[in-house]
Parts: sequence; structure tokens; C-alpha cells
Amino acid sequence: MTTAHPPTPGTALWVHAHPSRSSLNGRLFREGVRALSADREVVTSDLYAQGFDPVLDPRALSGGSPGAAPGERTGGPAGLADLLGDAHARGRLPADVVGEQAKLARAELLVLQFPLWWYGPPAILKGWFDRVLTAGFAFGDLDPELGVPRRYGDGGLAGRRALVVVTAGEDAGSIGPRGVSGDLESLLFPLTHGVLWYVGVEPLDLHVVHDADALGAAGVEREVERLARRLRTLDAEPGRPYRRLRDGDYRDTRALRADLLPGRTDLGIHRLPAG
Amino acid sequence: MTTAHPPTPGTALWVHAHPSRSSLNGRLFREGVRALSADREVVTSDLYAQGFDPVLDPRALSGGSPGAAPGERTGGPAGLADLLGDAHARGRLPADVVGEQAKLARAELLVLQFPLWWYGPPAILKGWFDRVLTAGFAFGDLDPELGVPRRYGDGGLAGRRALVVVTAGEDAGSIGPRGVSGDLESLLFPLTHGVLWYVGVEPLDLHVVHDADALGAAGVEREVERLARRLRTLDAEPGRPYRRLRDGDYRDTRALRADLLPGRTDLGIHRLPAG
Repeated sequence: MTTAHPPTPGTALWVHAHPSRSSLNGRLFREGVRALSADREVVTSDLYAQGFDPVLDPRALSGGSPGAAPGERTGGPAGLADLLGDAHARGRLPADVVGEQAKLARAELLVLQFPLWWYGPPAILKGWFDRVLTAGFAFGDLDPELGVPRRYGDGGLAGRRALVVVTAGEDAGSIGPRGVSGDLESLLFPLTHGVLWYVGVEPLDLHVVHDADALGAAGVEREVERLARRLRTLDAEPGRPYRRLRDGDYRDTRALRADLLPGRTDLGIHRLPAG
Repeated sequence: MTTAHPPTPGTALWVHAHPSRSSLNGRLFREGVRALSADREVVTSDLYAQGFDPVLDPRALSGGSPGAAPGERTGGPAGLADLLGDAHARGRLPADVVGEQAKLARAELLVLQFPLWWYGPPAILKGWFDRVLTAGFAFGDLDPELGVPRRYGDGGLAGRRALVVVTAGEDAGSIGPRGVSGDLESLLFPLTHGVLWYVGVEPLDLHVVHDADALGAAGVEREVERLARRLRTLDAEPGRPYRRLRDGDYRDTRALRADLLPGRTDLGIHRLPAG
């Protein structure tokens, strides 16, 4: 495994996506950053406070005629390579994107913190992925041995780990295994696998705050402390890797080989078996 | 089943979320709307063209002191009820949200069209859900028999069907069953089940354009025609309902009852069995 952006040991980037300072999320953000800062250099992206613009619009980059704008092609691995790879190569990325990329390039640990809205991240965070994780920066370079783009465990941000901190209004039953709303592991698979793992970042176990609207004052204090405690011991935690594309588990068909976990169709099949 | 907003028969709302008019998505949008207009009254929400703001920020609604702003609580069914239900009740919703809700309230068929970016909808569409589907409009009213909020097959927008049209850069193997990127049905479950079904809208089979960046001119024409053909026969299509919460399949634990599809943990367990 190589990485285009070797992280600086002992650094972290905390990305926060909730509008209200006085919310539970606001508390978790401030106290979490404080706890993490005890033994790391922490920088933050407080997306609401920054007024981050989540709308990817390649037209804003072009400067040329509408006919010459990128966007004729919609695909690429994340559906964005052709829209933005060109802009990256030509150094025409907006200043805010360049700034976020600089933070990411340095950070060894990534924390993504947000409330679950409609069973996914708020738009402001989704747009941070859309705009910041450009081809040429986060993915798209070729594996020198295999001759294919490095992705899924081996992308442009390999060598990093990520903690997803999410607050949910529902209880553990509703978003647990077989829960009425779908299990949270699957609901966030597009984030943990489709975004993080795609670009080489290994996710840790989710940090979930259930019943977030019904905690009461004492419950909030308990959750603040539980998060701080976890952050203090992150280095000792095992990662939760998915299967690495280069290991051959998806050879030939781009689907998981028939001899591996035959018959199963749940998203859990993409986890690397323990041991 | 009752609905807070009875749709007008023969109407459709087409929501489009791609920045470029000259893209494949731009073509599919224009030709799709044309085909659908043959036998329906179609209104559109071209989110990029409208300059739709996807960032939910309750602070913009308040007008009061920061201490009085909504957002202290983060939960509710979609994590948003407490943030915005209040604003809905007091008629303080922004004009653009009111406009989108008026379109939704009238439409019988909903089409959501977008490119798959990072294995989900672009931020501008995610934010359309975050901002437009407010408590009091799309969910939150009580089932008069059961005394619980109507949701999952019986929400504020019941009586509608939806077609999701999505372009993907990957091939059918990569996002098919056991595909390396996860199967698209599961990747979009937060949308089809967590958004649409939650508020009562029944999704039809996904309309997927694979290999969207490698179609070539003839391939684009084929896809335009395939979509138009499908739109002409939508009324004859069976829906793809998930389980209705009120039917009792999740009784007591909020997880699928142990006697139903025992042992399975894939998201497909939430589909209503055929027949």
C-alpha cells in the first residue's frame, strides 16, 4: 500500500455538520475536540460555521463557453471523475476545496460528526464529499502493479482511520439489525465503504448516540463523557476493514466471488473476515 | 390509508439534480419530461437551474436570540422533527420550501433524477429532502386508530408513487447483487425506504443507466428511448412496496418479527413479500 498523501502522525481533522452550537451535537463537537486535543494536534471543519457551500457545480470552474463546460460525461468511479478530475489537474479548484484538501492531506485521523437526517448525512456534509474528494486528489491514481485505479482500501488517502460520530432520534431497535428503519451499518455503508474505504480510509466502529432527542440533561452528560472516553483510547482500537479490491475477492465479475460467503446478499459480505 | 395531501390525478413532479444541460442527465431530463407530458400534467424542479439552497439552517428561521433557536433537540423520526416542525406550525417556512411543498402536495407521480455521486444523491437533492420534507407536512400526524405517527407506507404523502432515475459510472456487476460497491438497491435504501416510503410514497423499480460515462452517442440515444418507453407504460407497472409499519411486522421490538424471514439481515427483508 502506498498513499499519495502521507499523513502526519498525531494529527486529526474533525468535520462537524450541525447548525446549532447549543445542540447536543454542538456539545459533542466542542468536548470531543477538547478530549482529542489532549494527545493530538486537531484541526476542525465546522461546516455550518464556515458557511461551506455543498453544491458541486463544475460550471463555476470553467470560465469557458457553456458548450465547453465539463459534465458531458457523468461517470467515473464515483460518478465525478470526469466532472472534476480535469479541474484538479489544471489547478482550478476553488479556494475552499483546496483548503479542505490541505487539512485532509495532513490528518492521520478523520472524525465525521453529524446528526442522522433522512437516514444519511446532512446535505452540507454530503456536499463536502462531492466537492472535496476530487479525482487526482482522493482517487484515480493507478496501481503500478495491477494497472487499475487504486480504490477500496488503497486509494489516495490510504494510511488513515476514521471515526463516524452520529446522533439519531431513533432507538437501538429501530436502526439495529432487522430494525424497521434499516440497520445503521447498512444505512451508512455508502459513507463508510463508498466514501471512506473507497479512498483508502479505514473506518472504526460507528459511534452512535441513540434517542438523541430524549436524553435529558443527565443523558447528555453521559454521552459527552462516553465520547471523550472513547476518543482517549482510539489508538488501541482495531479497525474495521472491508475487503481490499486488490486482494482479488471480486475478480473477473466485480461481484464477490461465488465461493466466498455463498448465498449471502447483505452488505456485511464486504467486511474482511476477522483473523 | 388516508393522506394529508390528496394528489391530483394525472399530475407529476420531476425533480432533477444535475448541473449540466449538455450532459446525459440533461438529455434524459428534457426528453423524459417531454415523454411524460404526453399524458400527464408535469411540473419540474430543476434544482441546479433554480439555484436551490440545500443547506437546512433553522437559525435562518428564528429571528430570535441564538439561545432561543431550534436545534437543542436533534431527533424525531427523521432527526428533524424538532428542528423544523415548529417552523411549519408557525408558518415561518422559507418561500422556496413552501413552493416545493405545493408542487409535491399536488403531484401524483414523483420522479427523482440524478447522477450517483459517492453512492448517493448529489448534495443539492439530499438538501431538498432535508429542507422540503418538514414535520407537519410530510410526516408527523397521528394514526387515529393506533395513536402513533403515521409513517412507512402511511405518511403525509401517501397515495403517491415515485420513479428514481439514476445514472451510474459503474457497470451492472459492480453495483449489482454482491457487487464490489454494494448493490444499488441497498445503496439507495435510505432514499427509497428512508425518505420515500417513510412519508408514504411507493417506489417503483429503480431506473438505472449503467456505464453512464461510456455510452457513446448511440448509447445515449438508446437510453433516452428506453426511459421514454418506460415512462409511457408506468401506469401499468406494479409498485414495489415495503412492509407497512401499521401491519404489525415490527411489533414490540421495532425490529422485524423473529418469525418473518428468520436469520436474514439484508435490507431486502423490508420488502413486502409478493402475492
